[in-house]
Amino acid sequence: MSILFDRVAFIGIGLIGSSMARRIRRDGLAREIVACARRQETLDKVVALKLADRVTADPADAVKGADLVVVATPLSAYAEIGKRIAPALEPGAIVTDVGSVKGAAIRDLLPALPSNVHLIPGHPVAGTEHSGPEAGFAELFEGRWTILTPLPDTDRTALDKLTKLWQAAGSKVVTMDPEHHDKVLAIVSHLPHLIAYTIVGTATDLEQTLQSEVINFSASGFRDFTRIAASDPVMWRDVFLANREAVLEMLQRFNEDLTALQRAIRWGEGDKLQELFTRTRAIRRAIIEANQA
Amino acid sequence: MSILFDRVAFIGIGLIGSSMARRIRRDGLAREIVACARRQETLDKVVALKLADRVTADPADAVKGADLVVVATPLSAYAEIGKRIAPALEPGAIVTDVGSVKGAAIRDLLPALPSNVHLIPGHPVAGTEHSGPEAGFAELFEGRWTILTPLPDTDRTALDKLTKLWQAAGSKVVTMDPEHHDKVLAIVSHLPHLIAYTIVGTATDLEQTLQSEVINFSASGFRDFTRIAASDPVMWRDVFLANREAVLEMLQRFNEDLTALQRAIRWGEGDKLQELFTRTRAIRRAIIEANQA
Repeated sequence: MSILFDRVAFIGIGLIGSSMARRIRRDGLAREIVACARRQETLDKVVALKLADRVTADPADAVKGADLVVVATPLSAYAEIGKRIAPALEPGAIVTDVGSVKGAAIRDLLPALPSNVHLIPGHPVAGTEHSGPEAGFAELFEGRWTILTPLPDTDRTALDKLTKLWQAAGSKVVTMDPEHHDKVLAIVSHLPHLIAYTIVGTATDLEQTLQSEVINFSASGFRDFTRIAASDPVMWRDVFLANREAVLEMLQRFNEDLTALQRAIRWGEGDKLQELFTRTRAIRRAIIEANQA
Repeated sequence: MSILFDRVAFIGIGLIGSSMARRIRRDGLAREIVACARRQETLDKVVALKLADRVTADPADAVKGADLVVVATPLSAYAEIGKRIAPALEPGAIVTDVGSVKGAAIRDLLPALPSNVHLIPGHPVAGTEHSGPEAGFAELFEGRWTILTPLPDTDRTALDKLTKLWQAAGSKVVTMDPEHHDKVLAIVSHLPHLIAYTIVGTATDLEQTLQSEVINFSASGFRDFTRIAASDPVMWRDVFLANREAVLEMLQRFNEDLTALQRAIRWGEGDKLQELFTRTRAIRRAIIEANQA
């Protein structure tokens, strides 16, 4: 691989940021990596794991001389980060992020940034239920999609450069309108997480006698939900608040469908149940065919 | 392993039945296996896979001379099977099943069976989203729980024999009251499946333009639901109809919790979201510690 950037600055370096850093190091995609985190504990881990050439707790210090800045914190920190890094950004630098809601990312970052940098919001659709810099791995993006949501006036050369980085990280890249991104992610990601958090919550509120049984017999379906519901709490709090409209809209549809199923169970309408259960098999096959299983 | 049964008859031989048959053959746990299925296609597969010594489409023929009969069909077939096998059962034979609802299994099997056989309902809490005899494998029950729900007057020797078989298959065995079983499974298995079927259904009803994106970006959470929602449609139709009361009760609790979360999102109550998302992480850790992850 050839060097694509001179200095990459990560503002926030958890599962996603550290996976990017690992890949960039492994394949020599940048000359230098700078990592910024709020907590000393995180910076210590980054140093121990040798993920960056330099670490700092100051975002402005981190972005100095960087031709790529990757914001990889929970969404609620974006507005403050935008303000902090703005005066220190290099003219011509690319500023991107990896957050799960693109409308909010643009709303919170764009107003603060100087007009001589390129904001190109991004979202690698990959992850695990683990968090923190120790959870990352260089192969995380292999075969997965990264969605970039450039603005109408985004510079083509900057967009190409960022696209090349994600492709070099193993990702397939697609561009999308930010609003459309947020709608798609509401159904494929945000609603599933909300449902998983809810059902695991319902189970933890059960009588104590049922609790240990829930754990022992979780192999029967529940287990998959607990994996999803073990995802980073702060990140997900921010996602739901930042994508409120789209999530509530999808939740409304889900609720209507669930009510219909509930009614079919109550009235013993087996044919309706079987019809739906047969239909849902097809989408699994499509996912397997698309190599996303 | 020593021989535990002389002749085991499987009435229905899909994922679970064929996994048992494979294990019994592999470890020599019975002298002979007879498999019964309604469809010739299934019997052909059983022959091709060498899962049984003899196949038949007639349940009465299958159970002749068997000291263990395993009913492994969808629940809706139980009442008819009970009637068909009753006259042909050997005195002293053990009749068990592997269905996910024990109240209904007892209701449908017990009245038909002669008093000189031992009905011991069972449920191996293991499975995959695949179905049919080709989907089974000998290790399916390894480290998983099998729940037996003996009746108040169940013969101890018969219960011990069946327990030994499941242990020899790699399973941990626990006995439980049938009603309690159905309540536990409603939350750990039936509700998760219902939710997964619903959300995948909601996604398949989306506008065509969103459909392919749902598939491409499924790695972000949705994918896990599609796996669960690819489970056998007839088996699951029967489960929901057979465990209606307990499922509707758990669904009610889930709905209340979901409404509370919906409200927290609408009103931007981030602290409530974060509190729940933190709490749900603990149950994942407990599952990992119980070696059920």
